[in-house]
Amino acid sequence: MVTAGTLLYEGKAKRVFATDDASVVKVSYKDDATAFNGLKKGQIIGKGAINNQLTNLLFAYLGENGIKTHLLEQLSERETLVRKVDIVPIEVVVRNIAAGSFSKRLGVAEGEELPYPLVEFYYKNDELGDPLITDEHALILGLATRAELTELRNQAIKIDRLLQQRFLASGLILVDFKLEFGRTSEGEIILADEISPDTCRLWDSETRKKLDKDRFRQDLGGVEDAYQEVFARLTSLREGQSE
Amino acid sequence: MVTAGTLLYEGKAKRVFATDDASVVKVSYKDDATAFNGLKKGQIIGKGAINNQLTNLLFAYLGENGIKTHLLEQLSERETLVRKVDIVPIEVVVRNIAAGSFSKRLGVAEGEELPYPLVEFYYKNDELGDPLITDEHALILGLATRAELTELRNQAIKIDRLLQQRFLASGLILVDFKLEFGRTSEGEIILADEISPDTCRLWDSETRKKLDKDRFRQDLGGVEDAYQEVFARLTSLREGQSE
Ligand SMILES: Nc1ncnc2c1ncn2[C@@H]1O[C@H](COP(=O)(O)OP(=O)(O)O)[C@@H](O)[C@H]1O
Ligand SMILES: Nc1ncnc2c1ncn2[C@@H]1O[C@H](COP(=O)(O)OP(=O)(O)O)[C@@H](O)[C@H]1O
Ligand SMILES: [Mg+2]
Ligand SMILES: [Mg+2]
Repeated sequence: MVTAGTLLYEGKAKRVFATDDASVVKVSYKDDATAFNGLKKGQIIGKGAINNQLTNLLFAYLGENGIKTHLLEQLSERETLVRKVDIVPIEVVVRNIAAGSFSKRLGVAEGEELPYPLVEFYYKNDELGDPLITDEHALILGLATRAELTELRNQAIKIDRLLQQRFLASGLILVDFKLEFGRTSEGEIILADEISPDTCRLWDSETRKKLDKDRFRQDLGGVEDAYQEVFARLTSLREGQSE
Repeated sequence: MVTAGTLLYEGKAKRVFATDDASVVKVSYKDDATAFNGLKKGQIIGKGAINNQLTNLLFAYLGENGIKTHLLEQLSERETLVRKVDIVPIEVVVRNIAAGSFSKRLGVAEGEELPYPLVEFYYKNDELGDPLITDEHALILGLATRAELTELRNQAIKIDRLLQQRFLASGLILVDFKLEFGRTSEGEIILADEISPDTCRLWDSETRKKLDKDRFRQDLGGVEDAYQEVFARLTSLREGQSE
């Protein structure tokens, strides 16, 4: 039997612990940073605390706007209680502007605006390096049903619209981001995992300066500062709004 | 001005020449063999003659069964007149059994039967290494319209059904294959390029022995023999049928 406090899973950025409620897990965010499917490793001091709080701030905002998420209760700077789900093994990527692997694979210059938000599915499988998949691949591999793929796509587009607004109000352009969804015990699909500078590309809306994990991936320096900058901008606006 | 005989394009496997009719080109098949996007190079003696004649035999068969193709007239063992088209820069792959990049990318054992024929699109672009694309990528890159993608998929599935039958009657399993389509001056989409052991995976239906370019890719030996075996089987059945 799994007892409260048991480490259920240790990922690259977070640890997941059992609680005394079987339908609830505790997520604990680490400062560890990896890139290129684990080939590059390092630490970003303060990242765990920032990503935990930013994820919760954004999940709360999405929740207020009709998106169902796994968020239950923040316990501390680094720890949060969330609904336990079966993660759908599909990384859902939304792109508003060409960058990263999209630019590289398809020869589209970084920074080129896409005509509409592009949703991509990647098979969440570290051994295979999270390959891009089509809907047919997802169906043949049994990763999700046709109806679930439609649901993932619809949710992703709604979330993109909401996040773009929220980030822009803080002077940040949402270039692209990765989402994970999970199935609850009732079979409902809800938003899980995290939304942070680890999983989003965020550019300053004036200078287009990168304020996300690309600073780590590309050795641009100022990694911690970028995470703190995003955190400061999002939390100060939050306070401003509630006045 | 382009005069008859001008080399219009030299690809990895064929040369394309102008004729005195602007809507017709002459294709000449080479013995050159390449694999892994040109990284591996060699020659397969007799391949040009075999691939030209096999392509024409199969295009004629598809034509008799309602598929529109570029085939006009075979001129010699290696040369054929075809309708000139604007090639849609999408390689259309149909898979009946897992093999090759599908197996490698997605971790599905080679030889596993797929539940239904899988159609994949690849961006035909040597510099980028012909990356897998989704429908949305094709649309955003402007490679084809939504209606054309549907047409490519429908044609590919029909061609798969017809080819599977034809190959099986010659003791060959059609594992997967690649098609190219082109737009005529009237904007119609027709089948172009080639169908040969260079562009199909073909296994002996009894022994599952590979009788295609994988013998070259994987240094299995007996490459020429395999091409000749496929040619002999398909042409002898053809003669048998017309008796
Ligand atoms: N609500 C949840 N229930 C169960 N697992 C979750 C939940 N949210 C996220 N996870 C999973 O927690 C794991 C740890 O996160 P992370 O360190 O980011 O892992 P990874 O190295 O796979 O990216 C991931 O596999 C993620 O899918
Ligand atoms: N009917 C046609 N009209 C114009 N071009 C064609 C036609 N059929 C095939 N082609 C093109 O001829 C070129 C030569 O063929 P090939 O040597 O196989 O080239 P590649 O190295 O691009 O595979 C290819 O770009 C192919 O798309
Ligand atoms: Mg993760
Ligand atoms: Mg070719």
